[in-house]
Amino acid sequence: MQQATKTLTISTSRIGLYEFTEAAFAFVKETKISTGLLTLFVQHTSASLLIQENADPEVQRDLERFFQRLVPHGDPLFRHTSEGPDDMPAHVRAALTATSLSIPIQSGRLALGTWQGIYLYEHRTAPHRRKVVLQVMGE
Amino acid sequence: MQQATKTLTISTSRIGLYEFTEAAFAFVKETKISTGLLTLFVQHTSASLLIQENADPEVQRDLERFFQRLVPHGDPLFRHTSEGPDDMPAHVRAALTATSLSIPIQSGRLALGTWQGIYLYEHRTAPHRRKVVLQVMGE
Amino acid sequence: MQQATKTLTISTSRIGLYEFTEAAFAFVKETKISTGLLTLFVQHTSASLLIQENADPEVQRDLERFFQRLVPHGDPLFRHTSEGPDDMPAHVRAALTATSLSIPIQSGRLALGTWQGIYLYEHRTAPHRRKVVLQVMGE
Repeated sequence: MQQATKTLTISTSRIGLYEFTEAAFAFVKETKISTGLLTLFVQHTSASLLIQENADPEVQRDLERFFQRLVPHGDPLFRHTSEGPDDMPAHVRAALTATSLSIPIQSGRLALGTWQGIYLYEHRTAPHRRKVVLQVMGE
Repeated sequence: MQQATKTLTISTSRIGLYEFTEAAFAFVKETKISTGLLTLFVQHTSASLLIQENADPEVQRDLERFFQRLVPHGDPLFRHTSEGPDDMPAHVRAALTATSLSIPIQSGRLALGTWQGIYLYEHRTAPHRRKVVLQVMGE
Repeated sequence: MQQATKTLTISTSRIGLYEFTEAAFAFVKETKISTGLLTLFVQHTSASLLIQENADPEVQRDLERFFQRLVPHGDPLFRHTSEGPDDMPAHVRAALTATSLSIPIQSGRLALGTWQGIYLYEHRTAPHRRKVVLQVMGE
């Protein structure tokens, strides 16, 4: 049983989805692990991970529209406002989506479905540098 | 350390929860792994995974009522409508629930709590064939 | 490759977040595993797991305000009411947050980001004893 780890840094320019499917595939290929498990872990509480359709870009924009309606910036419900009107909504969005994801590796490839892409979901309006830890375990 | 993988195909007839707890237990038993980890991964972006109470069936119907209210079919918010009024709501529901689940294995059994069942959550109204990858790692 | 498992019991007094980051770090340290993966699994359907900011306590209260608004106790939408007005909302909250979490271990430490804390999220109003299974795999 072998292991390998890598930390990806993803620069975000604004709220929205940032695909890194290819970087995850490339890392798995590098490790030469044929059967095993990839774990993804985002080291932030105002950004999260998401597996979503990567065919029609409108899906990503609709997803963002949904979250803007569900947890609007500046929502008067919130008292943690010192870091800006988008900060507490970002924490709520992160709670509603994923901090970690586990994807099986089969025949040296991630077992993603045809339309699945792996995304970092940036929930803040300002640019950030986000870190995602990739951990592979297998043979 | 051993590994085993299996892909379950679950035929769905309509929106709702489809339990496959027994199939997951049976697969773990087959592998003869006593201590380890089961990873479940759904290969779709309009269906998801859920661990929920399997005692009162009304819980599942209430859960569905909640999601129908939160992300109604035909919601005018959405522009990705070419695949039907239930498609974009299905992507949103999938984002709000789980794509992968990790369950420890102890003494050859999944470490589920007394009332926990494992479900595929179908978010589309039409029948589908859904694939869930089961991956076991352990000894 | 080594493995270790532990079940944490967390006593809750009311709805809200209960941090157990230190217990998770202590368990990883005990196992002496330097590189690997920690899996957390909650054995309940009315409590869940969450990684959130542990700096400003107002974040946790705002999160709770959000969920109270999204899934209010006694919501007339629900029919599964025999276990109290907070029971079905608890199942919905559990579905919207995490049942399992996977955190990489690097240099003998959990790879959490600076502001990340690990929480049990109790969704019921009455006190409960909650069980979280910790499973470590690595070398």
